Amino acid sequence: MTAPSTNPLTGMRQRYPEELLVERHVCRVLLESGALSGFQEYDGPVLEPFSLFEAKSGGELVEKQSYWFTDRGNRKVVMRPELTPTLARMVAARGEMHLPARWMSMPLCYRHERPQRGRVREFLQFNLDILGADPPAAELEVFLVLDRMMRTLGVSADKFRIRWSSRRFASAALAALGVRDAAGAFGVLDRRDKTGEAEWFGMLTEAFGSEETALSVKKLCEIQDPEDPFLTGLLGECPELAEVRDFGQLLSGSGMRSAEFCPSVVRGLDYYTGIVFELTDTGGENRRALCGGGRYDNLVGMFEGRAISGVGFGLGVLALTLFLETYGCLPDGLEKTPPARLFIAVFSRDELAHALKLGEGFRNRGIPTVVDVSGRKVAKQFQQASRENYPWAVVVGPDEAQTGILGLKNMLSGETRRGGIDDLTMLVRGNG
Amino acid sequence: MTAPSTNPLTGMRQRYPEELLVERHVCRVLLESGALSGFQEYDGPVLEPFSLFEAKSGGELVEKQSYWFTDRGNRKVVMRPELTPTLARMVAARGEMHLPARWMSMPLCYRHERPQRGRVREFLQFNLDILGADPPAAELEVFLVLDRMMRTLGVSADKFRIRWSSRRFASAALAALGVRDAAGAFGVLDRRDKTGEAEWFGMLTEAFGSEETALSVKKLCEIQDPEDPFLTGLLGECPELAEVRDFGQLLSGSGMRSAEFCPSVVRGLDYYTGIVFELTDTGGENRRALCGGGRYDNLVGMFEGRAISGVGFGLGVLALTLFLETYGCLPDGLEKTPPARLFIAVFSRDELAHALKLGEGFRNRGIPTVVDVSGRKVAKQFQQASRENYPWAVVVGPDEAQTGILGLKNMLSGETRRGGIDDLTMLVRGNG
Repeated sequence: MTAPSTNPLTGMRQRYPEELLVERHVCRVLLESGALSGFQEYDGPVLEPFSLFEAKSGGELVEKQSYWFTDRGNRKVVMRPELTPTLARMVAARGEMHLPARWMSMPLCYRHERPQRGRVREFLQFNLDILGADPPAAELEVFLVLDRMMRTLGVSADKFRIRWSSRRFASAALAALGVRDAAGAFGVLDRRDKTGEAEWFGMLTEAFGSEETALSVKKLCEIQDPEDPFLTGLLGECPELAEVRDFGQLLSGSGMRSAEFCPSVVRGLDYYTGIVFELTDTGGENRRALCGGGRYDNLVGMFEGRAISGVGFGLGVLALTLFLETYGCLPDGLEKTPPARLFIAVFSRDELAHALKLGEGFRNRGIPTVVDVSGRKVAKQFQQASRENYPWAVVVGPDEAQTGILGLKNMLSGETRRGGIDDLTMLVRGNG
Repeated sequence: MTAPSTNPLTGMRQRYPEELLVERHVCRVLLESGALSGFQEYDGPVLEPFSLFEAKSGGELVEKQSYWFTDRGNRKVVMRPELTPTLARMVAARGEMHLPARWMSMPLCYRHERPQRGRVREFLQFNLDILGADPPAAELEVFLVLDRMMRTLGVSADKFRIRWSSRRFASAALAALGVRDAAGAFGVLDRRDKTGEAEWFGMLTEAFGSEETALSVKKLCEIQDPEDPFLTGLLGECPELAEVRDFGQLLSGSGMRSAEFCPSVVRGLDYYTGIVFELTDTGGENRRALCGGGRYDNLVGMFEGRAISGVGFGLGVLALTLFLETYGCLPDGLEKTPPARLFIAVFSRDELAHALKLGEGFRNRGIPTVVDVSGRKVAKQFQQASRENYPWAVVVGPDEAQTGILGLKNMLSGETRRGGIDDLTMLVRGNG
């Protein structure tokens, strides 16, 4: 038998400790930013009935890009490709739920796609939603959280935009331009940032049958202000135009600078109905949107019970991490984080019980402490402490075991201070 | 079409916000206790090659109790039933890894079992291991972490024991008692706490062919001290007896009170070789072990590269949570945690932009804040704030928007204090 591969399956997520520190840093900022705006965490199962996703996410995502199989109970089940249908189910199950509610989650999701930069088969996707609140206040609260996340992660304001439009507005504008199949046209609009300009114009022409219509659609997509007179000329006074103008004014009034009206933003998922948005890299290093979201009416419509709308987004942690890396926004030296503050070297087997007891003493005082379990010579133990960047170390030999007086070494300066556990605890706590 | 069920699949994990607060509390203590002893977090994929588990975990767990299927690439894959084989793979892949290493993880795992109290199909299993260190120091460090976890969770010392023995010792003792198939006998020993005494004795008699041998095995299992003369008589001077005596002495020397020698502890998984242990409820409310672990030699043996042994355990978060509930060790009122510290009510649509800006101001000062997005009347908004236990609330009306002077209401006392954002921030931060 040949030795099996030590690689994980293609596209699966595997994190060594120093890698997990980076991922956790990003996740922590996302969750803490959400909590600062009153979002509460929930979670659902990785494995769900296939039918739940078939109905909510649209056919292709679940049928062709998901991990689905038939389980031992002969149920067709799927490893969730996204969280929103689960959210819908959980909200529907809680009939008497008080609204509005602010919920967030950090689920692992699964898609059987060809792996590429920032896109893998198993991924953490941060989800944040406000349920049961009408536009535009809920939309703006969501934008504010997204904006805060980016700022807290250290991204300067010129490096990202929250580009937004509305599905209703896009349908009305396309219809006014003579496009019959507005829903079909969304797919072409969505390609704008993913293809070159000439190629995209070719796609427009082909989709809309004439160069004239293609030119009009292109012009529509270039508009950056909902107040643009072109839109008044195209649509007149209508609720679809009022919606985007209303939201644009609220955005200005609240001092939000990173939002940008962009009529080509329509998003891919079937369930969006109103305002849609995506987070984009203005530097063009990361072409795909870092995050996509929008408003979905009647979230729980496939279940029995009252209609509840929501607005929210999903954000891939890996793509965001790569973005942060591109712009030097990841904290330095995370991978050099020591396992603990204090390393206790053990002179010989005779002092082991005493050293372990001492380790517990430091831990009881709140000091993360490692006691050597290698049984190697003290010099080797200190080499390990130094290599792993422990800021402090002590050695427990016969004298220390007898007197309780220890020599605490500052691993950076090389200085040693002698004292009992309480004195030394103050030092170790103080600096590193 | 009938409305689909709003239930998750049987045995799958679903957590509403107030439920997740409880689970997170338990997970946080586990991870923080691990970190205090220098354990670093890692994670691996949920989906793994079937062959990885077939080789490491033993046939039944993976073949009959796992979620396995054939993926689009025609690979037989399995949703991990446990983490240790993944750990082995990750360690093997890191050829030049410095040892010893202290690693921990909080993976979701999957087993297709009949759900029962504390045992479900999708579960969080805390894992903690020391790799590349010989007994008995590493074993003791692991015991110390486990003991600290329980104490930090508020469990009194009389409610739990870490019961331990050794696989090597058990094999030698059973052989000395005339039991030929020691490995087969482990399964019977393991049933001791899960069946009544008479029934268990019947199983012993049947397994070992005679009532005399059964009586001897029963006697062996009742021994609580490795120094017991019965063992000297049975085994004489031998390394298998020396191992448990050595460890027993180290445990006493380190002042560890919750460990208890128990020869019937053998654990089910194939890969354990030395010391094995489990965490048990002394009150008998929870019959299954809360946690099981041990030493496994040659962890990465199925891969190419050097042999590395390890010692560690897996602990089911749900079973532990039920145990904590049984003994009243879960913190009171977690489910009443408010979404944020401050609720900002909005008088009318005219003040919305201002209120949202104000909310950002409080958040910039570190105060978790929710701005109303319901558009309801102020009285209704305050009802929500009260129902959700917000400690503080303000209302933004025309006056507040103009002057910036707010009335901050203490929702518990009903008192109101007026001031600007900086003054009020001090109050909100102070108490609740």
